[in-house]
Amino acid sequence: MSYTKIHINPISPEPTTGSVLVIYTGGTLGMVYETKGKQLVPFNFQQIIEKVPEISRLDFDITFLSLPEPIDSSNMHPSIWIELATIIEEHYEQFDSFVILHGTDTMAYTASALSYLLENLNKPVILTGAQLPIGVARSDARENVITALELAAAKNAEGHPIITEVCIYFNSNLLRGNRSKKQESSDFNAFHSENYPALANAGVNIEYNFPYIKPYQPGLKLKVHKKFDHNVAFLKMFPGISQQVVESILNIEGLRGIVLETYGAGNATTEPWFLNAISNAIERDIVIFNVSQCDGGRVSQGQYQTSKFLQQIGVISGSDITAEAAITKMMYVFACESRGGACVDMLGKPLRGEMSI
Amino acid sequence: MSYTKIHINPISPEPTTGSVLVIYTGGTLGMVYETKGKQLVPFNFQQIIEKVPEISRLDFDITFLSLPEPIDSSNMHPSIWIELATIIEEHYEQFDSFVILHGTDTMAYTASALSYLLENLNKPVILTGAQLPIGVARSDARENVITALELAAAKNAEGHPIITEVCIYFNSNLLRGNRSKKQESSDFNAFHSENYPALANAGVNIEYNFPYIKPYQPGLKLKVHKKFDHNVAFLKMFPGISQQVVESILNIEGLRGIVLETYGAGNATTEPWFLNAISNAIERDIVIFNVSQCDGGRVSQGQYQTSKFLQQIGVISGSDITAEAAITKMMYVFACESRGGACVDMLGKPLRGEMSI
Amino acid sequence: MSYTKIHINPISPEPTTGSVLVIYTGGTLGMVYETKGKQLVPFNFQQIIEKVPEISRLDFDITFLSLPEPIDSSNMHPSIWIELATIIEEHYEQFDSFVILHGTDTMAYTASALSYLLENLNKPVILTGAQLPIGVARSDARENVITALELAAAKNAEGHPIITEVCIYFNSNLLRGNRSKKQESSDFNAFHSENYPALANAGVNIEYNFPYIKPYQPGLKLKVHKKFDHNVAFLKMFPGISQQVVESILNIEGLRGIVLETYGAGNATTEPWFLNAISNAIERDIVIFNVSQCDGGRVSQGQYQTSKFLQQIGVISGSDITAEAAITKMMYVFACESRGGACVDMLGKPLRGEMSI
Amino acid sequence: MSYTKIHINPISPEPTTGSVLVIYTGGTLGMVYETKGKQLVPFNFQQIIEKVPEISRLDFDITFLSLPEPIDSSNMHPSIWIELATIIEEHYEQFDSFVILHGTDTMAYTASALSYLLENLNKPVILTGAQLPIGVARSDARENVITALELAAAKNAEGHPIITEVCIYFNSNLLRGNRSKKQESSDFNAFHSENYPALANAGVNIEYNFPYIKPYQPGLKLKVHKKFDHNVAFLKMFPGISQQVVESILNIEGLRGIVLETYGAGNATTEPWFLNAISNAIERDIVIFNVSQCDGGRVSQGQYQTSKFLQQIGVISGSDITAEAAITKMMYVFACESRGGACVDMLGKPLRGEMSI
Repeated sequence: MSYTKIHINPISPEPTTGSVLVIYTGGTLGMVYETKGKQLVPFNFQQIIEKVPEISRLDFDITFLSLPEPIDSSNMHPSIWIELATIIEEHYEQFDSFVILHGTDTMAYTASALSYLLENLNKPVILTGAQLPIGVARSDARENVITALELAAAKNAEGHPIITEVCIYFNSNLLRGNRSKKQESSDFNAFHSENYPALANAGVNIEYNFPYIKPYQPGLKLKVHKKFDHNVAFLKMFPGISQQVVESILNIEGLRGIVLETYGAGNATTEPWFLNAISNAIERDIVIFNVSQCDGGRVSQGQYQTSKFLQQIGVISGSDITAEAAITKMMYVFACESRGGACVDMLGKPLRGEMSI
Repeated sequence: MSYTKIHINPISPEPTTGSVLVIYTGGTLGMVYETKGKQLVPFNFQQIIEKVPEISRLDFDITFLSLPEPIDSSNMHPSIWIELATIIEEHYEQFDSFVILHGTDTMAYTASALSYLLENLNKPVILTGAQLPIGVARSDARENVITALELAAAKNAEGHPIITEVCIYFNSNLLRGNRSKKQESSDFNAFHSENYPALANAGVNIEYNFPYIKPYQPGLKLKVHKKFDHNVAFLKMFPGISQQVVESILNIEGLRGIVLETYGAGNATTEPWFLNAISNAIERDIVIFNVSQCDGGRVSQGQYQTSKFLQQIGVISGSDITAEAAITKMMYVFACESRGGACVDMLGKPLRGEMSI
Repeated sequence: MSYTKIHINPISPEPTTGSVLVIYTGGTLGMVYETKGKQLVPFNFQQIIEKVPEISRLDFDITFLSLPEPIDSSNMHPSIWIELATIIEEHYEQFDSFVILHGTDTMAYTASALSYLLENLNKPVILTGAQLPIGVARSDARENVITALELAAAKNAEGHPIITEVCIYFNSNLLRGNRSKKQESSDFNAFHSENYPALANAGVNIEYNFPYIKPYQPGLKLKVHKKFDHNVAFLKMFPGISQQVVESILNIEGLRGIVLETYGAGNATTEPWFLNAISNAIERDIVIFNVSQCDGGRVSQGQYQTSKFLQQIGVISGSDITAEAAITKMMYVFACESRGGACVDMLGKPLRGEMSI
Repeated sequence: MSYTKIHINPISPEPTTGSVLVIYTGGTLGMVYETKGKQLVPFNFQQIIEKVPEISRLDFDITFLSLPEPIDSSNMHPSIWIELATIIEEHYEQFDSFVILHGTDTMAYTASALSYLLENLNKPVILTGAQLPIGVARSDARENVITALELAAAKNAEGHPIITEVCIYFNSNLLRGNRSKKQESSDFNAFHSENYPALANAGVNIEYNFPYIKPYQPGLKLKVHKKFDHNVAFLKMFPGISQQVVESILNIEGLRGIVLETYGAGNATTEPWFLNAISNAIERDIVIFNVSQCDGGRVSQGQYQTSKFLQQIGVISGSDITAEAAITKMMYVFACESRGGACVDMLGKPLRGEMSI
């Protein structure tokens, strides 16, 4: 597929220090008010450049590429994740790093999904966006874009990229993408990573948290996956949840797996009807992935009586994975047909640093 | 029903300053290790007194009442919420305040549910618990219990209780119960209230945040509700959610309402099949309650195109309510048969300070 | 004195909603790199407008006024505080609100000092600045300036200003100026107010914390003070501080008062030589103002033996005042000659919300 | 010197897993109310055992040793630091680890001082205390003591101690001692370490932050220093500070060094009289150590014009050191007579992880 691209040369006459491909997908960052109504709508991505003239002052090459139809991130879809992974694959040799402009609503889902699709990634892929459109006076858009670009272009003393993961940069913090969650819908400080430290903090200087950053590995060859299985769903526990509800969800036609959102360290009710329903589903080869409703801490099946049962009947522990990284991991793992029965094993182990062992 | 009770007289010979009924429901706080295994099990509540001898040094009367069968809070059930509300009703005149010892896993659900059941509450009902059992050396149990008792007994200059709400006290913070969420499964600092300030902080002194505390109102008469409707479920959005999944959930037999967990400020996909499915459900009198996956901020239907559609087809905005307060509110509101069609109105308005207008 | 001014008309043809006077004092916000060296130097303030074109899109009148010689805020001086107060006095009728662009280093001192000089203030005076110069690509300058302007222009339903205090706006938070402290020299989130809540938070919307904001009062008439007494110093306690050091400081020629930086809740050593030295100073009419080295909490003289002595010999408790607000308060209070012996009373009481009772 | 000791055998009949020496110095933790007055006074340390019966349930040997005269930590003195170092030296072979019970007020000073005195430390030395006395019902004392003991006894898979530094444990956080600061005088969460991550967090489990913990080094031989030089003082900048004040402090008889508390990244006024005063002091061999008034970030002399001057005249940068670690480092370094002129070099380099390079 061919995309419209815009190339921005640095103003400085000195040789550039690298190249970044910026992929615009839509989202609040690039929104403007319709002339007639008061509704915010996506705008043409060329305007981003006009709104952030500082971009041309950076000392590296920047190329903008827009998806043909920018979307609000609430309409994000696995097919677009595959499109993004494909764009990165096709431009992987040509560019040193990648920045994805994305709506905040599903950014954590996209970052998780891309981390799975991009096996052996060895260059930065940094998602960013904004809580307020770049088209209004007061906005976090400009600052987020500029800093994401600087992080993407950052190199260590040996000339290798500092970051070689899919990350989210937002409001001074660089987070591992599949550890991130949109926690605040109003604050500029929207994204958090409760179970993994921030990889960098941008203040007067950019301070990197090196012990927690995946290091550059010479010789890694990118392998891009391009398939998801949609036969998954969330099942969130609450006191009083009815047998009718649980069984209806577990019996959805074609269902292959459930992210079971449990209490605390992975606990659920021990009522016999519930354990039977889960047990029966597992016997029908439906995979149950145990993820906590708590943002922080981890599933520790077997610690309490109420999680011991789950372990005994074959529920897979999600450790400290986020709900966003869990559901996308399931969609990815189920699509790895060739690996056969190994998918359950893949679910329970960290693939891209998305969970602790 | 008659419950076993234990009464603790203060050591001091001076007149007591009030009376607290402590209701023990089970949970980690009261757990010990089985002599044989390494599994934690609930213990007899009399041991709590032995473990926290300081209780007898407080200057008010304390009466312990245990549920006949203490449970792990993962097994908490609306029938027990009704039992708790009934215990409070039966002892409301006799005691000045109430402390409920409860497992942390579902404490936020219970606090929300009780807030709805106890209309016109004018005395403190404070839930607390612990991350580590009172039976081990290192534990947050003792401190949480003692401070919850002191908060329950606290009176203002006029001799009225300072707190007249259902609250959660945990790790130095007193939070409005139906604004609370268990956010951390490992930290002692387990509960948070993203959208409403803490009501008090316990350090060297207890500092109250008076402007945000519901004040005592002379003449209020407690009205206790005792019914829930279980025909509710969560439906959590994610990119790639299938039509099959959405429709199966919306067509669960007997279903009366759904808490729709949306993105950001209340957004969801605008794909026609999705809007049709929601729209059809509403036509079948299924109530859709829009709650954000973000802990902080609020649903603001109509701000973006992706939430405007939801508003137009009759989805009810949950504003800044938590998922816990939302699902229990739905269970409570649907059970208010006598109020007829007004239930939808009740959902969208604050009943007990659980959401902002 | 006459200052150079630049007036910016809103682009919109509609009537403006108010007027703001922006006073530029210098600081990082307005710095650029020298063409030759790598040293940052202040630039001409007209460039600020060029760097933040969005300013012309705001719907109120903005007038820029620059001090004749912009300074790095490390060179801030009480004479400039008096100049700033005088500028505000002279433009008080003409403008609805005031924004002061100021270096971060001493911004908390200036905000405190101005709060004392501007008695009966009834319009917003908002200080802001930046950690990175407006002249570099990655910078917090633009966002801080725009939001400070919007906060200054904000009015309530009756058309009165929401803010009528001297405040600091920085990195999404509006803080009471004399409660603020520069706590971080590298983070964008530089200012904190440990003992008083933020007055507003700027995210997708600006959320005001109304119970903690000083309300507009009809009929207040501004009274501007214009004098400071410089005969003050800090004396910071540490274990092992020598008698020589303490006595040398207490015997500085002309000294009128000391901000004694004590431990915790206002404690200091009870060694006899120390108490004698303090006691003798007090007898010589040197005022000792007890402020804690801890940012949070308050001096509570008499709680411990180690602070009881201080109270007995006439040390004045600073309660929860910051060091910045304390030293400037002393400089202000000692200059109120006409009030005679009342200055000690003024020190120990809140004058502008700078300390709790 | 011989100290009173009390030995506590574990209840369990199994072999103990190690030995801890607990040194009681006094402080709030061990305070009780006088029978007659309302003043808190130190109590006999044997009562600590009675108040925390859980201590006997730990599976390691604990020996309590009390200083002959427990003191409020506001009276802490370098002579006691030397006594503590000597006690540790004398018991270093006999015990696996050390816990020091200490008042909170000067705990950060003591932890810093001990870190310098104990060169080549290879066993844990953990200070803890409490905001509320162990003698009152509501208190953080019990939890802090128990967890400090467990941290002191913690060993890695090879049987070596996990911690081999002087640390402060308080309210769930283990901090490097010479990075700590008492930031809150009222909250239980009293200590912070702005410029270095917490070494461990105690929740349901104790989570160690291994990359930031100084590792055990086989063969290290403890070297204990026992001298401090008291001829030091703080000089805190503020706008309007007078020449009289600055010169009086720099001319204190016998003075060898000053911790200059500057603004932001190490800036001070560039007024000629000030730079001359500092310059003259340096010529008289008075050492000037530049430490920021900001808790977070670091001194970066030369970044701005206002700190460049300081560098040029020979002021030593304190980088990101705390005021507490700076003043005690100066007292330690000046006492290392044998090292001659090297003391200035020692000041500017990290000796015990107290500052970043």
